[in-house]
Amino acid sequence: MKTVDEVWELLRWEISARQAVETDLADALGGVLREDVRAPEDQPAFDRSAVDGFVVGAGDSSEVFCIVGEIRAGDGRRHELTAGHALRISTGAAVPAAGEVIMLEDAAESEGMVRFSRRGRDHVRRRGEDARAGDVLVAEGTRLGPGAIALLASVGCIRPKVTRGIDILHVATGNEIVAADANPGPGQIRDSNSPLVAAWARTKRMRLEQKRVGEDAEALRHAIEGRRDVLLVSGGASVGGHDCTAEVLDAAGFEILVTKVAVRPGKPLIVGRRGEEWAFGLPGNPLSHFVCLHVFVDVALTAMQGGSGAPAMFRGPVLADVNGNPRETWWPASEETTGLRPLRWASSGDMTALGTANALVRVPVSGLAAGREAEFIRVT
Amino acid sequence: MKTVDEVWELLRWEISARQAVETDLADALGGVLREDVRAPEDQPAFDRSAVDGFVVGAGDSSEVFCIVGEIRAGDGRRHELTAGHALRISTGAAVPAAGEVIMLEDAAESEGMVRFSRRGRDHVRRRGEDARAGDVLVAEGTRLGPGAIALLASVGCIRPKVTRGIDILHVATGNEIVAADANPGPGQIRDSNSPLVAAWARTKRMRLEQKRVGEDAEALRHAIEGRRDVLLVSGGASVGGHDCTAEVLDAAGFEILVTKVAVRPGKPLIVGRRGEEWAFGLPGNPLSHFVCLHVFVDVALTAMQGGSGAPAMFRGPVLADVNGNPRETWWPASEETTGLRPLRWASSGDMTALGTANALVRVPVSGLAAGREAEFIRVT
Repeated sequence: MKTVDEVWELLRWEISARQAVETDLADALGGVLREDVRAPEDQPAFDRSAVDGFVVGAGDSSEVFCIVGEIRAGDGRRHELTAGHALRISTGAAVPAAGEVIMLEDAAESEGMVRFSRRGRDHVRRRGEDARAGDVLVAEGTRLGPGAIALLASVGCIRPKVTRGIDILHVATGNEIVAADANPGPGQIRDSNSPLVAAWARTKRMRLEQKRVGEDAEALRHAIEGRRDVLLVSGGASVGGHDCTAEVLDAAGFEILVTKVAVRPGKPLIVGRRGEEWAFGLPGNPLSHFVCLHVFVDVALTAMQGGSGAPAMFRGPVLADVNGNPRETWWPASEETTGLRPLRWASSGDMTALGTANALVRVPVSGLAAGREAEFIRVT
Repeated sequence: MKTVDEVWELLRWEISARQAVETDLADALGGVLREDVRAPEDQPAFDRSAVDGFVVGAGDSSEVFCIVGEIRAGDGRRHELTAGHALRISTGAAVPAAGEVIMLEDAAESEGMVRFSRRGRDHVRRRGEDARAGDVLVAEGTRLGPGAIALLASVGCIRPKVTRGIDILHVATGNEIVAADANPGPGQIRDSNSPLVAAWARTKRMRLEQKRVGEDAEALRHAIEGRRDVLLVSGGASVGGHDCTAEVLDAAGFEILVTKVAVRPGKPLIVGRRGEEWAFGLPGNPLSHFVCLHVFVDVALTAMQGGSGAPAMFRGPVLADVNGNPRETWWPASEETTGLRPLRWASSGDMTALGTANALVRVPVSGLAAGREAEFIRVT
């Protein structure tokens, strides 16, 4: 039985990043950047006015200025500043060399002339004050959100290198499961793991194919034929009884690296490898399945995408006592303004917490008292 | 000039939720649920075995049991338990009435007979232990993530009522901006606000149309013709100079409710209303634009979707001193394991922080000392 940290180490060290491809900016959203993107020139590239107002020579101490022209944003002409003359200037417009900008609120205009009630405030965004040419703006390994996308656009990086889409095959197993739109007969339940994986893959922008088979090893063997980056099998992950995932993976040439993890819920987790392909046998119980997907499969996917390969951990106080267990627990919780509210769960099959869970709290073997700081991951 | 809280109040009270429509489960991801979804029957609906093992009569104290059959998951037959007889049982299988389940690890099998080394542990998930028929499983107003989608699927709720898609028109204005794939001439810059809005809308699953115009009021007037839920105009939001957003919105029949907000960066924010339509004039400077989008427009969209209409606020310590300002500041930060790292920004036009910002910290007028707890929102 491996610990959670041991499984993370394994995934982090053994999984290599998939190919990086130049991608349209819109499609790069959510992807991991595979190159340092540097400023091609100083940012901003020229002195820009930060306000609407007037520009005069910085050393020009005239009392009244004659308004002789205007510089609007986007105006590419070259403007000269001469003594006693002022130019109107718009926010974002290029400031002529040795110009001082005075904001509209500090100016009094009358018949083509302007006086200033206040001088010497700095209303210019200087060339290079944000970044210098060659500075790294977005670092390799960054997951591209809307802000990073905007930053790339601002420097004309419209085909960034990001990791190609990851291909996943998901097979739900179990004689007792029926599709979510079917009516379960006696002893049957609806398959909720397939909709979970479908929604999760959609938030991660993965390419997903899904199948459903019974508990028959031959059917599973047939279902997993072919190659892809990640194979997920839900159910059949225990060692006893009719569970056959490990056996089928082994027969298909996967080296089985993990069969059990000291984690609650979720103990029966299979991790297998066939060259660059990785397989995960997830426990069929919905809560265990949810935890393993977020705690382990997410880490593998991040590693494939060229990200850190470690889950993003945060810290916050728990708002109630949480029981420990000989295995460390990943407890579903609702992250609220004041901390993490642990949600009730009766068993590893109890998915009622999933309606509100947005976090999984890592509970040590000794448990956590209310108010104690805990580590957690966010789940979507 | 309004405060941030006053703008939130306005949006919360004045914006009504859009129509709720029955939606395929896959497409409901990210939407706001508009009905309480209740358990149609007890959860689980029948006593289920939590392990692989054997089932015998709960009161049957025989020393050795004869293995007379098997109950597999999904088996809908009715099984009787008789004295001295045991049935094999799989995880998830229905447990016969008055049955006790003993796990495989506590059983020793030999020639069709089985002895148990340990009895009396509860390995049954009882009918109704997760939820009772009629209990609310997913509450109205919940934003549906993969976990909630799975929970809905488990009870056969495959066409939940969620708010219909929100239609947005975004118009970027400014004579100085060129498309991200163009080369800016002297005095010009690339339009990064349009890629920002496109990516943001994609993460929110909004329907977006985008246009770009100069600073000409007539062009803007023409661009905003027609109706939609939300109109966003980037740039031209100041009152002086050539900024014409407020004037054009007013002429188009929008009641202008806000023209300035006491927030840094981002002071010039226009909020207008025409019946059920809402318009936002956002400052063109990229950092101000980013802040206003997340602090104000997000709140409006959540209200339209039938969510709480308040931004989800969290708390954590800041890892460095943060300066205050007469206006409250929403400071770009990187949320790390130990707290919030404030990112450098030189001006409201400095977007270099957007490569790594995943949070905006609310900094009071007095500022924040390193280590102090701060409120923040998450940004994607």
